[in-house]
Amino acid sequence: MQPTTHIARRMASIQPFFVMDLLARARQHEAQGRSIIHMEIGEPDFPTPEPVVRAGLAAVARGDLHYTPALGLPALREAIAAFYQRRYGVAVPAGRIVITPGGSGALLLALGVLVDPGQRVLLAEPGYPCNRHFVRFVEGEPVAVPVGVASRYQLTSELVEHHWQPETVAALVASPANPTGTVVAPAELAAIVAAVEGRDGHLICDEIYHGLVYGGEAATALASSDQVFVVNSFSKYFHMTGWRLGWLVVPEGYVAAVDRLAQNLFLAASTPAQHAALAAFQPETLAILDARRDELRRRRDFLLPALRDLGFGIPVTPDGAFYLYADCTAHTGDSFAFAERLLEEAGVAVTPGRDFGTHQPERHLRFAYTTSLSDLEEGVRRLRAFLA
Amino acid sequence: MQPTTHIARRMASIQPFFVMDLLARARQHEAQGRSIIHMEIGEPDFPTPEPVVRAGLAAVARGDLHYTPALGLPALREAIAAFYQRRYGVAVPAGRIVITPGGSGALLLALGVLVDPGQRVLLAEPGYPCNRHFVRFVEGEPVAVPVGVASRYQLTSELVEHHWQPETVAALVASPANPTGTVVAPAELAAIVAAVEGRDGHLICDEIYHGLVYGGEAATALASSDQVFVVNSFSKYFHMTGWRLGWLVVPEGYVAAVDRLAQNLFLAASTPAQHAALAAFQPETLAILDARRDELRRRRDFLLPALRDLGFGIPVTPDGAFYLYADCTAHTGDSFAFAERLLEEAGVAVTPGRDFGTHQPERHLRFAYTTSLSDLEEGVRRLRAFLA
Repeated sequence: MQPTTHIARRMASIQPFFVMDLLARARQHEAQGRSIIHMEIGEPDFPTPEPVVRAGLAAVARGDLHYTPALGLPALREAIAAFYQRRYGVAVPAGRIVITPGGSGALLLALGVLVDPGQRVLLAEPGYPCNRHFVRFVEGEPVAVPVGVASRYQLTSELVEHHWQPETVAALVASPANPTGTVVAPAELAAIVAAVEGRDGHLICDEIYHGLVYGGEAATALASSDQVFVVNSFSKYFHMTGWRLGWLVVPEGYVAAVDRLAQNLFLAASTPAQHAALAAFQPETLAILDARRDELRRRRDFLLPALRDLGFGIPVTPDGAFYLYADCTAHTGDSFAFAERLLEEAGVAVTPGRDFGTHQPERHLRFAYTTSLSDLEEGVRRLRAFLA
Repeated sequence: MQPTTHIARRMASIQPFFVMDLLARARQHEAQGRSIIHMEIGEPDFPTPEPVVRAGLAAVARGDLHYTPALGLPALREAIAAFYQRRYGVAVPAGRIVITPGGSGALLLALGVLVDPGQRVLLAEPGYPCNRHFVRFVEGEPVAVPVGVASRYQLTSELVEHHWQPETVAALVASPANPTGTVVAPAELAAIVAAVEGRDGHLICDEIYHGLVYGGEAATALASSDQVFVVNSFSKYFHMTGWRLGWLVVPEGYVAAVDRLAQNLFLAASTPAQHAALAAFQPETLAILDARRDELRRRRDFLLPALRDLGFGIPVTPDGAFYLYADCTAHTGDSFAFAERLLEEAGVAVTPGRDFGTHQPERHLRFAYTTSLSDLEEGVRRLRAFLA
């Protein structure tokens, strides 16, 4: 008998990262000795900060390698609570902070306890594609709200009110956002929270790029309400990507359910990663992190005018993260084919708009500045020559 | 306005580990200086083997801390493929091996690509409770098949045939099983695979306790078919619990879907854990692991007759894992209250049957031998005094 492949229906809506094929091809070129400038990678190029590495090494060496409680190492939950107080002046009890396997684990827990099959979650497009895939994974219905320059590529309270339906249970905001780098202003964020909670829903706020904001820290949704779910990660500002660690702040009434779900889905987050992260909030580490944030700002300040100068449209100056989302219609009507040509003919890898949803993907490319200033300069030279 | 708590319906079927409350209470007693013998913990008491620790330390020290591909580090996938060849004589291409955040991550991927809402998955009860919770999480319907002494607490091809319905898409077998420690014999496993595949379904085989079998290795379902999904873990035989690492073997036709889902749900498994695990298959490590397996067998061989002698019914000698599932009706009709009394009055912590489903939980307790032989001896002394 021939084997039959029955793939669950949800998988039809869960797409791959299209850039992965491009990345694989870039690696092939490199293996053949060709130079590629990487502006496609959504991972900071900095190593894990030394004090965090040391704490991780010490934990492994002393054998702190057994399971932690499902909600996380108590000392780490306390350290995050103290960080909210210090950095934002917001009191968040450690009991509401859940340590997760990456920001991904946090999002899975939040949506898992909130969303019933068929219920809707509002989110902005362009946006990080995994967000809508997570909604679909728990059999919810992601409702993509097209956003553009007028709202700085973000949801607004008006958009939330306009798109809210009886089946809507949550709105998801990312601030700073991937791929646009924009931040929701504090007053607007408070208005969004009010709009969502006034409709008996919950805001899920993705704050994984917090700390990487170039004109003063973004507002946390936790300043507006204790009923929001906040997703955060040690991968971006804290430069701990491969350790796979994040956290979720949950409203008091959901802690028990999230604990149950975390026990079942994960047992717990990685123990060495949690011990390493205990060093993430030390002044020594924060000084390293802030110097890196300043370096990222220098890269943005170089790349933004350079791309504009080459005819890419970046009408909104991004506030944070490490991406520029550029309109490329001056050069092409098909950003996907254009990204392939940039790789093959110019030796520059970028991410096509197609990886960020269905709102005008063919008009856009994402440039990541997760590589050195000198690489970015070389990339711009190559782009200039290619476009000449 | 009062905050409203809307918890998704699936959470009503996703229960906590009831033993957690007991464990917390045990820890309180210990904090107050009281001695507790732990026979409730499903985590081996051995540290991560030294060569694995060294490999992990080396990876962290040299900064191998960025994301790996979603399917895992190619070298680790190759090492696992070689292990299947060496230990079982079964050829499993590395391309079908997916590295996951623990066995839990493997199960989530398997069920996520296989099960549509409302579709059924057969599983044995008593059984590991997370299995049915995972099915429920993806909106499938777990169908608990009560099993007992007659089938050595396992599904059989007959039971599969009897319980299969048009909505059934998969059967889940754990061999060795938690909480009963029994293994499915090779011929029966092949018959189960044939029954499932003859009905156009897939077998999911949980093999996380492989390696911890005391009369020669258990059969892998991969020997019977290349259409099974096999879940495995570095937590049990390899003693890497807190690292959170496992793997999933998938049929060729599902690799692309599993890759897409892993990208979205996890990005990738922990990088330091994957590098550490590269050392798990070295002869030096395997020698350590096999010595520990022998120590676990000595514990089983002590505890099994000792419990029988105390009037606990263990009619089937467990083949592996590190649990004894005991009928306690000679002493009580309420295993849950009895477990509480054992903790409070005898200073012995065990897991009540309630944590393993709804098939006669009140008649059973699970004793784990994840503590030293001398602790087990002390535990038996305390039980004897308590029951006297």
